[in-house]
Amino acid sequence: MSTMIAQPSAPQPRYEDVEHAAERIRGLVHRTPVMTCEAIDRMAGAPVLFKCENLQKVGAFKFRGATHALACLSEAEAARGVATHSSGNHAAALALAAARRGIAAYIVMPDNAPAVKVAAVRGYGAIIEFCEPTLQAREECLARVVQRTGAVFVHPYDDERVIAGQGTAALELLQDNPGLDALLAPVGGGGLLSGTCLAAEGLSPSTRVIGVEPQGADDAFRSLRAGQLVPSIRPNTIADGLLTSLSERTFSILRRRLHGIVTVSEEQIVQAMRVVWERMKLVIEPSAAVPVAAVIGRKIDAHGPVGVILSGGNVDLDRLPW
Amino acid sequence: MSTMIAQPSAPQPRYEDVEHAAERIRGLVHRTPVMTCEAIDRMAGAPVLFKCENLQKVGAFKFRGATHALACLSEAEAARGVATHSSGNHAAALALAAARRGIAAYIVMPDNAPAVKVAAVRGYGAIIEFCEPTLQAREECLARVVQRTGAVFVHPYDDERVIAGQGTAALELLQDNPGLDALLAPVGGGGLLSGTCLAAEGLSPSTRVIGVEPQGADDAFRSLRAGQLVPSIRPNTIADGLLTSLSERTFSILRRRLHGIVTVSEEQIVQAMRVVWERMKLVIEPSAAVPVAAVIGRKIDAHGPVGVILSGGNVDLDRLPW
Repeated sequence: MSTMIAQPSAPQPRYEDVEHAAERIRGLVHRTPVMTCEAIDRMAGAPVLFKCENLQKVGAFKFRGATHALACLSEAEAARGVATHSSGNHAAALALAAARRGIAAYIVMPDNAPAVKVAAVRGYGAIIEFCEPTLQAREECLARVVQRTGAVFVHPYDDERVIAGQGTAALELLQDNPGLDALLAPVGGGGLLSGTCLAAEGLSPSTRVIGVEPQGADDAFRSLRAGQLVPSIRPNTIADGLLTSLSERTFSILRRRLHGIVTVSEEQIVQAMRVVWERMKLVIEPSAAVPVAAVIGRKIDAHGPVGVILSGGNVDLDRLPW
Repeated sequence: MSTMIAQPSAPQPRYEDVEHAAERIRGLVHRTPVMTCEAIDRMAGAPVLFKCENLQKVGAFKFRGATHALACLSEAEAARGVATHSSGNHAAALALAAARRGIAAYIVMPDNAPAVKVAAVRGYGAIIEFCEPTLQAREECLARVVQRTGAVFVHPYDDERVIAGQGTAALELLQDNPGLDALLAPVGGGGLLSGTCLAAEGLSPSTRVIGVEPQGADDAFRSLRAGQLVPSIRPNTIADGLLTSLSERTFSILRRRLHGIVTVSEEQIVQAMRVVWERMKLVIEPSAAVPVAAVIGRKIDAHGPVGVILSGGNVDLDRLPW
């Protein structure tokens, strides 16, 4: 891993920001349980501690970042509402966080988003604007919404308040389990993994933080190898939460602190998802199964307890991959 | 409910037996978590506390009773092994409990048992003998096995050690939540519900204990109404753990202590199962969804917090009911 010092072009959160985020969102988000499974320990060849963010409100860690971003807004900012584009979990998270604060949420969603995620966002009272499933269409649609409403844009991951909020999942896990050998999280835009890096930096510097990515959406793997951002062109994976590419901000955090990236195949993702459903009795979405695939496939050389962040559990039960 | 004093023909466990069982199996079984869900509270019109026995070892409360029954055996008894007939969860439970004690387990299973349950029993190292899916075929096959091996028969529910063990789930729930208005459990042979009655009798006498049964396997409802045992003839329900009928022993406990029985339809069971998967992110089997259907269908008149025992999570992911 490169040791050069990053030159961030945007505000960079630090460990202290994760600590402050945890104080701000206490009582607003669940302190999710940590679960274990003997069968998976045997597959992994090491004790594995699962931080169950699928049991977080809205069924995903995204509620941490959204709640923290909203907690940072002034009354005047909040009054105009918030807006975002998202493939689903960030949308639901921002919608519920906005409802709890009593303000409007405008959500730009791709028209191929899973029905269960669209229904969840609607259920939280957000206003949905559908667009084509391309980054360009999303950004154009969002710009129109922001211009029309004056809402504050809360990016799904390229936002220091969101990153600090996502880091609170790892913060809680490491507070109770300071000696982890490794800590694994999935990589999409890198918000969760960046926050995880910051939490480990402050609480458990010897813990190796490892990102896990689908082979069909491996922009973080290629970016870190190249030493510069290499965005995904046509990412293709069942892990629909991981289709986005790193931003300069998340890339800068990851190249400074991340121990490494591991990639897994679609087959390994589906198999890992099924193992968690069958053995742990937990509903997780494909994106959450990505780091599980790395541990049960023994793709990291574990020398002690390994932490895994189960990122979410929102899956369309009518369209299961087996 | 009748207040006549039962005349048991077989040893009857009491509250103290549940307490002793809890001491004996401590450290051998999981103290399962209690979970809540705001969305379900709204559906139920009351706070609902879910005792997650789907997260118990082997994925079902049955591991409590099996572990306690084995803990009660002398070394000489245990050396000959144990045997049972079961549609699945008790089989897996006895198999694992026997493996942990280092003794043989002989399991008579119906040849239409779900593949996932057969695989689980095999995985725990038990010796399986298949028979036709009738009570008579099971009992004849079991008698042959016991005669051949000298193994100790551990009945799935008509056994005071098993009943006391099953009662430890409610014991744990009530220890942490003594003021429950009602406590719901599914009814098959009545082992879990009998143990639940005993636990409530000792710890929280004001709590109404209510059994919930599929309309297609409502022998407990009919037996309690008739004041005598009315076994199921051809029970038919997706809740495959609830096909068995009460025994004299469980009937005698239930008629003495149970507040009432509620029945639910197949459609309500499947809907409740899906609600728990989608909103709680927990994999539960149809039998476990039966009391959930009663609370979300507001079939009990809740005046305060309601406890629900989620009995198990073993379901064939290739044969889901939606």
